[in-house]
This record gives sequence, C-alpha cells and structure tokens, in this order.
Amino acid sequence: MTEAQRIAAYESAIAALWQADAAHDLGHLRRVWHMVRLIAMDETEADAEILLAAAYFHDAVNLPKDSPDRARASTLSADLAVKVLPELGFPAAKLPALHHAISAHSFSAQIPCETVEARILQDADRLEALGAIGLVRMFLVSGALGGAGFDAADPMAMNRPLDDRAYALDHLEVKLFGLVDTMKTATGRAIAAERADWMASFRTRLLSEIGA
Amino acid sequence: MTEAQRIAAYESAIAALWQADAAHDLGHLRRVWHMVRLIAMDETEADAEILLAAAYFHDAVNLPKDSPDRARASTLSADLAVKVLPELGFPAAKLPALHHAISAHSFSAQIPCETVEARILQDADRLEALGAIGLVRMFLVSGALGGAGFDAADPMAMNRPLDDRAYALDHLEVKLFGLVDTMKTATGRAIAAERADWMASFRTRLLSEIGA
Repeated sequence: MTEAQRIAAYESAIAALWQADAAHDLGHLRRVWHMVRLIAMDETEADAEILLAAAYFHDAVNLPKDSPDRARASTLSADLAVKVLPELGFPAAKLPALHHAISAHSFSAQIPCETVEARILQDADRLEALGAIGLVRMFLVSGALGGAGFDAADPMAMNRPLDDRAYALDHLEVKLFGLVDTMKTATGRAIAAERADWMASFRTRLLSEIGA
Repeated sequence: MTEAQRIAAYESAIAALWQADAAHDLGHLRRVWHMVRLIAMDETEADAEILLAAAYFHDAVNLPKDSPDRARASTLSADLAVKVLPELGFPAAKLPALHHAISAHSFSAQIPCETVEARILQDADRLEALGAIGLVRMFLVSGALGGAGFDAADPMAMNRPLDDRAYALDHLEVKLFGLVDTMKTATGRAIAAERADWMASFRTRLLSEIGA
C-alpha cells in the first residue's frame, strides 16, 4: 500500500468509528498528521508506519471535555486502534509501540513517553492548542460551555484566582503557556515557543483594546 | 451631578434592569463609553450628556442573537431609556435626541443616523465587533451556538457559499470586514480599519497554521 492508500483507509475507518458523533473533526487528524511528519524530519529513527496510524487513531475514542473519564480516553483510543488496525494491514509487531504512542499522547493521562513516536505524536497534538488554531479552539470551547471570554473587571486575574472555566483568557496561564516546557522534540519546542509568543501578543492587544 | 456620579447612577439603573439575565455585560457598556469619549474628541459639537446616557442604555433591552425580534431591540432599548432616564435627572429636552441615537445604533435596525451623537454611538458599538475583542466575541458566539471555528476542508469558502452560522471564520467576510465602510466618524473609521487589518492578519496566520 502507498501512503496515500493507507491514509484513505485510515480516514474511512475512523469516519466509521465516529459515525454517531458529528463533533469529531477529520481536519484535526490531518493537521496532526502533517505536523507529525514535519517534526519527524528531525527525528530520523522514528517509524513512519507507527506515526501515520498513531496520528489518525489518537482520538479514536473521544470523550467530552468535562467527562470524568477523560483521563482514560487516550488509553481507550489505543485499545481500539490495536483492535482495528490489524484488519487494515498494520503489522502486528508494531502494535505495542502504537498502543504506547497513543496512550501517552494525552495531557490528562499523565503516561510518560518512552518512544520517539510517542514524543512526536504528543508534540504534534499539543501544538493544536497553541497559536491561532489554539486561540480558536479556546474561545469555541468556552462559548460552548457557557463561559465568558475574559473577566472585564480583572482580565489578568491580579486580584482573584485563575478560573478558565469562567474565563477563556485564563486558560493561557492555567494551561497553554505551560505546554511549551512539556514539548519533547526540538522542532515541536521551537514551534510551540513561537505560537505561545503570538498568543501573548494577542493577549496584549486584547488588553489594550479593552483598556485594561 | 459630576460625570462619575452620573456613571454610577446609570450603572446601578442598568444593573437593575438586567437583573433577570446574567448574560449581560457591564464591561461592554464601559468600553463603549470609553470609545464614545475617544471618538467625540474630534466631534466637538456632540452633546456629552446624550452620549453618556446613550452609551450606558444602548443595550437596555437585549435580545438573543437568534431572536426574530432582534431588529427591534435598539428601538425597545431607546423606549426604555427615555422612560427611565428622567428619574435619573436627565433633561427632558434631550430625550428625543437620546431616543434617536439609541434606536439608530444597531446594525439590524437599519435606521439612518441623523445626529452626531447617533453616529458616534454607532461607531463605538461597532468597534467592539472588530480587532481582538471582536475575534473573542465571534468565536464565543459561534461556540455557544454550536458552530465550528472554520471549514477545515475549505476555510476560505472558495467552493461553497459563505455560512457564518456553521463556520465562525466566515463571519469576517459575511459581516465584519464590511463594517469598516459603515463607519461614520473619522476616528471610528481609522480604528476600524486598523482592527480589520489585524483580523485579516490573524486569518492569514490561522490559514498558514492549518496548512490551507
């Protein structure tokens, strides 16, 4: 199979798995795969077959942001991936490494990355939380959960605890800026730092516009 | 009464009117008032008393974005303002001008601005839809209505009709970029153009990040 044929097969498989839930986003999988490939250019020992399958199946089981089971979603995705992928021609010998890469990618799972494929997938997925794409996701999620964009009376949380459930902007300090230091590849870290800088400049602009 | 006393009285009055609805935003009124004051520096014939009352009461009656009555909200707000304001010491002679400024400020009302106060209020309120603050509002609203940030397959709507209900990013073309040409004061137009440029640069960055 060519890479293009494999991608087509994985996209149909994941679309079938996701059938019942319209909130899923094939665009996210494609972007993660492109970022995985970019990062892997400097990580030559990584296995391309594992990376491709990991990128397309890392969210096979997706739980809502506020689900109490969310920390287990990446392991459930890994379980589902190793169940489905052998039928799609994925080599059995690589299933354990694939399972680990998918399990370990998630922030909330807190599973240490032990392989280069795990490090690459985790970095690629985290980069979606930063930059302009991260900003879009941050405010969309906040809007969907009924939160506000920022605390108009104290947008920088100088005199109150941070609360990213109530105020989307707080999510930068609560989580996103900290992602830069969790990056595990050189390329991932460089992109993350640039995207976090851009988010900081966005915040500066917003504060200036609202007269804070 | 000093201006500070008048602001305090208007903020209490509007908070009392809004009591039943937590979605309202005093921060928006304060920002509109600051912007009104900034724009008015170059519009010396404007009446400061009308501007202050118009800024604080322009959303006195606020209907949801998807309400069929939304085009009437600004007139209902104007009606409520002229009912409430005489008790707060606002001069009766200025009520008609206040009513016009508030009625005409809204995009959907399509009432032509006939006074300088109406032009200033409309520009100040529209500026909240542009720049970083506009971006925050655009994605929050989309998230709350269950929309997506953008169409991953065709983010610039090259091969589909624009649909800002489904895709927040489409709102830039559907409405926001066009606001610049509706601006009615020199200061408002200059700020709107700069903010629209910044939004265009945000879109360029987003498209680059998502590989579009």
